[in-house]
Amino acid sequence: MPSPVEWIIKKRDGGRHSAGEIESLIAGFLDGTVTDYQMSAWLMAALLSGLDDGETVALTQAMLHSGRVLALRSVKAPKIDKHSTGGVGDKVSLCLAPLVAACGIAAPLIAGRGLGHTGGTLDKLEAIPGYKVGLEARAFERVLCTVGASIIGQTPEIAPADRRLYALRDVTGTVESIPLIVASILSKKLAAGSDGLVLDVKVGRGAFMKDLAAAKALARGLVRTARRAGLRTTALVTDMNVPTGRTIGNALEVREAIDVLRGRGPADTRELTLLLGAEMLMLGGRAKTRALARAMLERALADGSAFERFVRMVRAHGGSTRAVERPELLPAARVRRPVLAARSGVVTHSDPLELAWAALELGAGRVRADDRVDHGAGIELLRVVGERVERGEPIAVLHTNRRRAIDGAHERARNAFRIGTRAPKRKLLIARIG
Amino acid sequence: MPSPVEWIIKKRDGGRHSAGEIESLIAGFLDGTVTDYQMSAWLMAALLSGLDDGETVALTQAMLHSGRVLALRSVKAPKIDKHSTGGVGDKVSLCLAPLVAACGIAAPLIAGRGLGHTGGTLDKLEAIPGYKVGLEARAFERVLCTVGASIIGQTPEIAPADRRLYALRDVTGTVESIPLIVASILSKKLAAGSDGLVLDVKVGRGAFMKDLAAAKALARGLVRTARRAGLRTTALVTDMNVPTGRTIGNALEVREAIDVLRGRGPADTRELTLLLGAEMLMLGGRAKTRALARAMLERALADGSAFERFVRMVRAHGGSTRAVERPELLPAARVRRPVLAARSGVVTHSDPLELAWAALELGAGRVRADDRVDHGAGIELLRVVGERVERGEPIAVLHTNRRRAIDGAHERARNAFRIGTRAPKRKLLIARIG
Repeated sequence: MPSPVEWIIKKRDGGRHSAGEIESLIAGFLDGTVTDYQMSAWLMAALLSGLDDGETVALTQAMLHSGRVLALRSVKAPKIDKHSTGGVGDKVSLCLAPLVAACGIAAPLIAGRGLGHTGGTLDKLEAIPGYKVGLEARAFERVLCTVGASIIGQTPEIAPADRRLYALRDVTGTVESIPLIVASILSKKLAAGSDGLVLDVKVGRGAFMKDLAAAKALARGLVRTARRAGLRTTALVTDMNVPTGRTIGNALEVREAIDVLRGRGPADTRELTLLLGAEMLMLGGRAKTRALARAMLERALADGSAFERFVRMVRAHGGSTRAVERPELLPAARVRRPVLAARSGVVTHSDPLELAWAALELGAGRVRADDRVDHGAGIELLRVVGERVERGEPIAVLHTNRRRAIDGAHERARNAFRIGTRAPKRKLLIARIG
Repeated sequence: MPSPVEWIIKKRDGGRHSAGEIESLIAGFLDGTVTDYQMSAWLMAALLSGLDDGETVALTQAMLHSGRVLALRSVKAPKIDKHSTGGVGDKVSLCLAPLVAACGIAAPLIAGRGLGHTGGTLDKLEAIPGYKVGLEARAFERVLCTVGASIIGQTPEIAPADRRLYALRDVTGTVESIPLIVASILSKKLAAGSDGLVLDVKVGRGAFMKDLAAAKALARGLVRTARRAGLRTTALVTDMNVPTGRTIGNALEVREAIDVLRGRGPADTRELTLLLGAEMLMLGGRAKTRALARAMLERALADGSAFERFVRMVRAHGGSTRAVERPELLPAARVRRPVLAARSGVVTHSDPLELAWAALELGAGRVRADDRVDHGAGIELLRVVGERVERGEPIAVLHTNRRRAIDGAHERARNAFRIGTRAPKRKLLIARIG
């Protein structure tokens, strides 16, 4: 029987693992016969020597089957999941799940929490008083049957091997490997029991992937691996060089999502929702062409059916529908401070990373996984890239309950903006993979 | 303050560490702020991305200074150390230390134990009844002043970081890195307080390095790093495609060493001793040319002064000088079995690895570090490569106290020999580095 050391040496020397070897490696890691220090040596060898598609599929399957796999058999509508690699101001899941549900798709979304500069859909939902993200598997299935959309948090039973592996990668410099990222994302997505998956792979300053080649490689890796694992999948590579929409921070983002669901809202948030939604409708077989899918989605935004689904989803999760109908009742911070334009001109850049760190300082995010989030805190962008502003006019407003943090956050936010004469044209959809 | 993860990522991405970073890494590993799983990820990154000379020196120094460094100030003679990368039947240290001592060099040798197919000088010395390898630092220094030669075991105070690091490398597939091997060897050698070091880097089937390019790379790495750390160093790359001499196993090898010290013994054991001894005399400034050094050494073997030093060294370590004067009193195994030549001809090959594993089965070595060695067990080679043998004549004799093991060992030993018409010419000294 081969030992962990032999597997490590094989990968170190550029060898290819069989599916059985990868299964044994993950099983050994879970039962302790493969130690943490052996696994971290293997992870580094895998990062530097690479894993091919077959190995990536095997790793995905091994992590998937380390925990519970949902079947969602009673859900009759096509079940289409959506995953984003994370950005700043990205509230699209909140819009998307009820919107596609209004068009006959079931959207079983398992979402995450914010950490560092990246926001988390669960934190946004919890800005709605009473909303419970921790539904049991049976309740999740029931909401999907009746409402068609449910967004919950990852439960400890889903892909426990991934959780342990990710914790180890985080402290051993082995995060930045496309096959390892692919296996980590897909092991959780495959556990949710969907028929299809639409991926939003973001690229740019506010994204995990900073350059286009890496983002495309990740998108291709995700699509290839998901398909080999039997999941219909499309990936969009989208721009994250500026924040999505006009809000950063949980309750502020919920308000924006409600605006979009009511047929209004910022053009880019709406557009990203429509782009991803069209892919979901296509994958679910609800539309033959993207143009038809788009028309269905636009109608659902215009006729109130998307917003109505959102209200039903919030109710099904125990959330306050009153706060959703009247968003001024959502949590709000006590202190506000405008950021004034230093000169007149056109906004040419708003740095998503600086704005995200400023929002974090204001209380909207987490530095450590056990930090508490202030749902009312965040930043409203009064002017976005391409819009004109006069010197001394407010370009943004900071919201916080931390008076002490406001000066530092204000400094950061001020530095995030560039004002010039002509804004670069922004292309939201960069590539479609699959 | 940079974190372990940043160091790992730097090395993973091909960056270069400062000496301070390497010091902090090793200090952190010892005090627990750098965990085993982080260190093993760094080791794999270092193995695959490489360490340059400056980093290797820094790692060597950091491990050296993790423990006690001997000064040996009272030893007035030039102190020259010798290290071999390990082979089969290699008893040269036993000959070499007293021989160079007879020529005015102090030889402070810190030796190891056998593991796997490689024998250990300490086990050989302990075949001499009473010999104590565990001298205190002060007693070691005293023997070096009075006798000029002392061979002891590594104490726990010497380079503890290397011991912990080696244990981790052994189980994480990170042994086979030249810079890591260099730092491991030299951190211990530098701790012994020598002025110079002669290295015997073996290459071939019975050696750690199987091919010449790797052996030369290791030799060059050792010489460059030792010199940058302030140690005068020469390396010889020597052949290990057949066992050294005519014996494998502890007491048997002591007998052969005594033969060499008395001016007799197998030609190759004697030659290797003279080659390495000449380098030690040159490094210690006791001879101007290799030819002069060689003449001095041959005289000391011929006039009995080398053997006299050996007897004094054994006495100083509490060993039985009677057993050394009359080697038939050394431990002997009860069971002997000849290995008969399957055909008539010339011995063209004797596989050191097969013979070493056979000797191990007979009880001469260790599979695990805590196994007990049988000092009497081993193999005598009656015919070596280039010598003629008739069919049915004994080509070797197995010595053991394990009756049950003898059939398996006999099979292995028999398969180790090739008999043909013409033996290949063997070149003992392959390269001199430095």
